[in-house]
Amino acid sequence: MKKFYFALIFFFIVCAGYSQTDPLPSWNNGHLKTSIMEFVNRVTDTGSQDFIPEEERIATFDNDGTLWPEMPVIQGLFLIDQLKKMISVNPSLTDNPLIKAVIDKDKEYFAEDPETKLMELLVITMTNMDEMEFEKSAVEFFKTAVYPKFNKPVTELAYKPQTELLAYLRANGFKTYICSGGTIEFMRQISEQMYGIPRNQVIGSSFKYRYTGLDSNYIFREEEINSICDKEGKPVNIQLFIGKRPVFVAGNVRSGGDVAMMRFSQGNKYPNFQILVNHDDAVREFEYSEPDNYSLNMAKKYGFNVVSMKNDWNRIF
Amino acid sequence: MKKFYFALIFFFIVCAGYSQTDPLPSWNNGHLKTSIMEFVNRVTDTGSQDFIPEEERIATFDNDGTLWPEMPVIQGLFLIDQLKKMISVNPSLTDNPLIKAVIDKDKEYFAEDPETKLMELLVITMTNMDEMEFEKSAVEFFKTAVYPKFNKPVTELAYKPQTELLAYLRANGFKTYICSGGTIEFMRQISEQMYGIPRNQVIGSSFKYRYTGLDSNYIFREEEINSICDKEGKPVNIQLFIGKRPVFVAGNVRSGGDVAMMRFSQGNKYPNFQILVNHDDAVREFEYSEPDNYSLNMAKKYGFNVVSMKNDWNRIF
Repeated sequence: MKKFYFALIFFFIVCAGYSQTDPLPSWNNGHLKTSIMEFVNRVTDTGSQDFIPEEERIATFDNDGTLWPEMPVIQGLFLIDQLKKMISVNPSLTDNPLIKAVIDKDKEYFAEDPETKLMELLVITMTNMDEMEFEKSAVEFFKTAVYPKFNKPVTELAYKPQTELLAYLRANGFKTYICSGGTIEFMRQISEQMYGIPRNQVIGSSFKYRYTGLDSNYIFREEEINSICDKEGKPVNIQLFIGKRPVFVAGNVRSGGDVAMMRFSQGNKYPNFQILVNHDDAVREFEYSEPDNYSLNMAKKYGFNVVSMKNDWNRIF
Repeated sequence: MKKFYFALIFFFIVCAGYSQTDPLPSWNNGHLKTSIMEFVNRVTDTGSQDFIPEEERIATFDNDGTLWPEMPVIQGLFLIDQLKKMISVNPSLTDNPLIKAVIDKDKEYFAEDPETKLMELLVITMTNMDEMEFEKSAVEFFKTAVYPKFNKPVTELAYKPQTELLAYLRANGFKTYICSGGTIEFMRQISEQMYGIPRNQVIGSSFKYRYTGLDSNYIFREEEINSICDKEGKPVNIQLFIGKRPVFVAGNVRSGGDVAMMRFSQGNKYPNFQILVNHDDAVREFEYSEPDNYSLNMAKKYGFNVVSMKNDWNRIF
């Protein structure tokens, strides 16, 4: 009977605690949520052996598939938008088989070497212009773009559990960064508004820039890739932009793009935590996996925490 | 008589204000100091037309010759240190005429195309190694390195008026960055300690990095320049790292390296301020200028504020 009372009291304390202060209401109670909060409590407790000084509390989050949906990738929608605008001014552009294939939704054309073709399309649609002009186009896109499956503005598609997690980490002295394969100036147009992440904490793929001179005084986007911030490119860009290994990393299953960044954080001398979002919720979002199961295999090998969207999140948006 | 009393009261108010709260005690009272403080007051006053929101208060400071001395450049001392260490392990390195010229202090050898030769030396001494190994060498260097003319540890050579200015800007909500031709991971080892600037707010020249893989899990410094953060390279790197034009920029006279960054800030839609440090104090520091007077000419043309070290600073270190 004594045991029962203890259990009851404990239950009420937990409930009271959660109902008053739960910083992650969109996360279902369970092992993963407890682990995240236990990690944050432990590393912010000055009395703990595992205490991490505030300036070392670096968190990096992938964007596509980790903070918002990627079926299709939102920058892909922007790319098509840009292409249509360009064609309306210069219809002969469709003579280019690559551009024609996009307009015709010719999947077969993209079966071979899709990455090179995508890079070429990024260069065609997002470079060879003044930086300000590019940013204006991106801002315009975000004002009206609607995401297919959900028929909602793309700017309303941040995963709610993740924006809660970002806010929770910041409230505990973490500096939150995006580190994504998306191009840096595209994401910067919505990072503050959607995720509370300022421009200077956005790391991404980039094009070569050129300063045009003292009189014209602007940045020109050259038709050349500067850096691809994916796979091994993520640790490289984190080193360049931040100069420190993160202690908290979030990525997702799709292409293995986040494994290197997650593993990189495990080389930190401080305690560290990794979450890998698994898209297993066909009803509320999407269900997809990797053909070779690489990310999940690496999660098992290196001890990354896997997030089941279906089971760990009680709401998605 | 009434006028005299007013003048007297005004004088006491000014003195009292300064003695209690002067945030820039190493700056002599005068037009420039007043202009800096007037700018900061104006842009942080929510009632002013010139108010700048806190997230837009970006300040970028050059390092060599702007925050610490550059006769010789401190990274040059490190370069020679590294070279000597390498030769002690592998004496045949001096067969390389470039390395021999450094050891022999052969100025004639460097008369032709000094920049390419310097880049080559940077690659020889600071790449082809693990990032952690490089950082360890830099930390070791800073522990013992002494600057020739002053016979003081290099870590004690931050210009006092500039560290006051950085602290003053930060106290007024500015985010302070280094943006320098020095290489990024070298400066990061002392930026916090000397200037209160965290690693992730250091922008500089960089080498190509490579992530070595999930098992070895570190960053390797490749023998290739990634970016030279000088002249037109400064606005380019500011765009990449911060994504915003600064509103406050500090540079110095020597090579014209900071003119583009200063001018870049004038394209900001917000009020902006530029200071150009002129090394005109042979007694307390150094006296040198540019052969073609480019930076001072551009200061006149574009309205940058020139700092006379001799007249505007009442102490240097």
